[in-house]
Amino acid sequence: MGSLTIDFRRDGKTPLYYQLYQFIVEEIRSGHYREGEKMPSKRALSDHLKISQNTVDTAYQMLVTEGYLRAVAKSGFYVCRVEAPLFQPKPMETISQQAAPGEEYDFDFSTNTVDADAFPYATWAKITKEIMYHQRELLRHGHGQGDWCLRESVAKYLHEYRGVACSPAQLVVGAGMEYLLTLVCQLLGPDAIFAMENPGYPKACQTIRNSGKSLCFLDVDQQGMSLEQLYDSPANVAYITPSHQFPTGVVMPIGRRAELLGWAAERANRYVIEDDYDSEFKFSGRPIPALQGLAPTDRVIYIGTFSRSIAPSIRIAYMVLPHCLLEPYQERFGKYSSTVSRFEQHTLHCFLRDGHLERHLNRRKNSYRKRREALLAEWKNSPLAPDIQILGANAGLHCLLRVDNGYTENQLIAAAKEVRVKVQGLSGYYLAPSRLSCQAPTLLMGYAQLSPEQIREAVGRLSWAWGKSIV
Amino acid sequence: MGSLTIDFRRDGKTPLYYQLYQFIVEEIRSGHYREGEKMPSKRALSDHLKISQNTVDTAYQMLVTEGYLRAVAKSGFYVCRVEAPLFQPKPMETISQQAAPGEEYDFDFSTNTVDADAFPYATWAKITKEIMYHQRELLRHGHGQGDWCLRESVAKYLHEYRGVACSPAQLVVGAGMEYLLTLVCQLLGPDAIFAMENPGYPKACQTIRNSGKSLCFLDVDQQGMSLEQLYDSPANVAYITPSHQFPTGVVMPIGRRAELLGWAAERANRYVIEDDYDSEFKFSGRPIPALQGLAPTDRVIYIGTFSRSIAPSIRIAYMVLPHCLLEPYQERFGKYSSTVSRFEQHTLHCFLRDGHLERHLNRRKNSYRKRREALLAEWKNSPLAPDIQILGANAGLHCLLRVDNGYTENQLIAAAKEVRVKVQGLSGYYLAPSRLSCQAPTLLMGYAQLSPEQIREAVGRLSWAWGKSIV
Repeated sequence: MGSLTIDFRRDGKTPLYYQLYQFIVEEIRSGHYREGEKMPSKRALSDHLKISQNTVDTAYQMLVTEGYLRAVAKSGFYVCRVEAPLFQPKPMETISQQAAPGEEYDFDFSTNTVDADAFPYATWAKITKEIMYHQRELLRHGHGQGDWCLRESVAKYLHEYRGVACSPAQLVVGAGMEYLLTLVCQLLGPDAIFAMENPGYPKACQTIRNSGKSLCFLDVDQQGMSLEQLYDSPANVAYITPSHQFPTGVVMPIGRRAELLGWAAERANRYVIEDDYDSEFKFSGRPIPALQGLAPTDRVIYIGTFSRSIAPSIRIAYMVLPHCLLEPYQERFGKYSSTVSRFEQHTLHCFLRDGHLERHLNRRKNSYRKRREALLAEWKNSPLAPDIQILGANAGLHCLLRVDNGYTENQLIAAAKEVRVKVQGLSGYYLAPSRLSCQAPTLLMGYAQLSPEQIREAVGRLSWAWGKSIV
Repeated sequence: MGSLTIDFRRDGKTPLYYQLYQFIVEEIRSGHYREGEKMPSKRALSDHLKISQNTVDTAYQMLVTEGYLRAVAKSGFYVCRVEAPLFQPKPMETISQQAAPGEEYDFDFSTNTVDADAFPYATWAKITKEIMYHQRELLRHGHGQGDWCLRESVAKYLHEYRGVACSPAQLVVGAGMEYLLTLVCQLLGPDAIFAMENPGYPKACQTIRNSGKSLCFLDVDQQGMSLEQLYDSPANVAYITPSHQFPTGVVMPIGRRAELLGWAAERANRYVIEDDYDSEFKFSGRPIPALQGLAPTDRVIYIGTFSRSIAPSIRIAYMVLPHCLLEPYQERFGKYSSTVSRFEQHTLHCFLRDGHLERHLNRRKNSYRKRREALLAEWKNSPLAPDIQILGANAGLHCLLRVDNGYTENQLIAAAKEVRVKVQGLSGYYLAPSRLSCQAPTLLMGYAQLSPEQIREAVGRLSWAWGKSIV
């Protein structure tokens, strides 16, 4: 018991029982106490160390719970065997954040950003505050597919804006497209083979690949995914962006849509995943209705998100399941908790119910139309106009720019960078080799986050940079 | 052109171009216009219908974009072929919410609820409001693993509370355990075989199963998952709840922990997933440190959630990846957007930084300790005491009650229901048959959401209901 002499720190920071506990752990780990050895009785130790029996008892109980000691009734406490590896609690690692080397641009034509400044943020914040202050009950568990009131207002919104025909029971609200697509991949079973548009949406491709599914990459022609190639492929699930193909901007015409639905109807396990990623925005007339609402068969899984119409950091996406998948979904995912905070769910519900999103989209549409017109007009008036072709500008928030003046895509991107303008090349969106990829260099022009003035300036810089000889 | 006589509704609700568009779509679908047929010129139709040429142009452009017409330069517009199936936009389905038949209880010993009333909601709401009103920039994209400041405060919290050793770079913040566990399943590859505790956590089991992984179910003995069975199994990933095994409440002693880490160190592809689901709460002395912080090897994936310490509807969970998995994670999931809203991320960050969670947990711990003591004391004083054994009460927010008075588990649950008390049976948590499941009937007693008075009343009712003869 001589070794059990502890220099207690009586600074009030660490309780005595914990110091005693730590000391004994150390003794056992370092081998000073051996397996089977009997510990001093609580009374003896308390006398010896001049601490209360209660303190010793607490430390002993901790040591028993954690398996360092075992208590033998009417006998006392014995040291247990602690198998190697012997180890020490490790300190916290302190790696500091490594900021990415700052690539600075004045103008950014990336496709994944929107004009977050235009969002009626004050309204959103006010609704959030109201809900936080008056609906405390939202701290409790909600429905796994999302609360019913939100699903009702999303169903109504999708019907009015996109011609989607669904009941709230078919809707699943989730924190982002990747999450929902992962569920769909699992739902469609291990043998599903996915057909992807090529070029296509890399994130969706990565998500499907991460889910362990096989993929076929089909060419995108002037009407969207090639149906001929789809029929020739072993795929039973077609992932498509018919309203505004990403990234080419092709709108799938009604004839191709009908053929695609016909393909799905031919076999029991065929499905179409319709990703309607920025379908709210079309500039000549009304938006093209979603495939889902036109389908006579029950084979379309419709996926969309509010990240583009509201803000990228608000993580609320949704999917509409066909009836035939509702029961399998319930069976396998029915116990999953919703991935969206109920406070945000109810904020969005009120935002939709009270018409704020509608008004916001109408304002946005006008603003985006002006940006689109500025972009088209600037290129039309550019000295480079004879070498330029614009594609896919009828819908969505970006278009393609084909530049046929002898430079490669990489040269064009590098020259743009020289004048501090960020553009992306189409070739980066080819998910697999394609004979169509050998066309003239093509760039993506996302114009959602640039004002007409910025667009004018940026196009002017590009025209100058691409017009001169590149060394 | 005679058939092109439209009775325009001039009520201002539907624009003329859209009425014209709808009319022509209908004519094409019904076969009145046939493939190849030439449409009247814009000027002719505008004269005929007494509408502006602009209106006709908009409708024609929509029809071209959607593939009903094609434009032939210097000639005019022609009807395209529309393949069967012919279809109509469908109306929205209106299925109303079906409320579950109300099973009413006065007292609920379920394990999945906490006392949401105790949460310092006003503070949380105030922080949220402050952030909403002053950090508009949070509308933009954040980091896919969660914003750095939150990861820093979570790493600090985990180190102080749980002895977890990690840098913020190893942390991934996500919307719930199911989501993070799904990522882990994908990350560990298609050939991973998971060992689950039996009885165990059904949601984790379902999530792993949904991810297409093979599962082995191993018995839980007095020290947790059987290591003997683990060595005999083909599993290379062990999913465990060492701090308070769910549902038995067993705390894995230090010796078994060391053995488990030894098992993981033996092969390159072995991992331990440590689910630390309600580890903040331990009642005799300090919480047992997490396995992760003790591991000399880089093979522990640590998962936890704030759903229990804050509120079930706040969907913020986290995982700590070992260094060896950081690069594969980045490669495969680096482009995924975070599933947690940045506003909630920053609210939690401030809540942690300013010590609110710490104070909340301390208050909760005292309150839960009283509830636990009330539960233990009531059963000790119950007339049923000789037939009762309480297990797993050292940590966590529930314990097990073994009742050996001749009744089956189902009879006990039914008798409890008669007196409006909800209890769950242990047998429902056996994920696979086990020879250990033939023990005396055992019930789960989650006491987190009941006050000491409620616990006294509920235990009184149970003692009465289980004490009388059951017909």
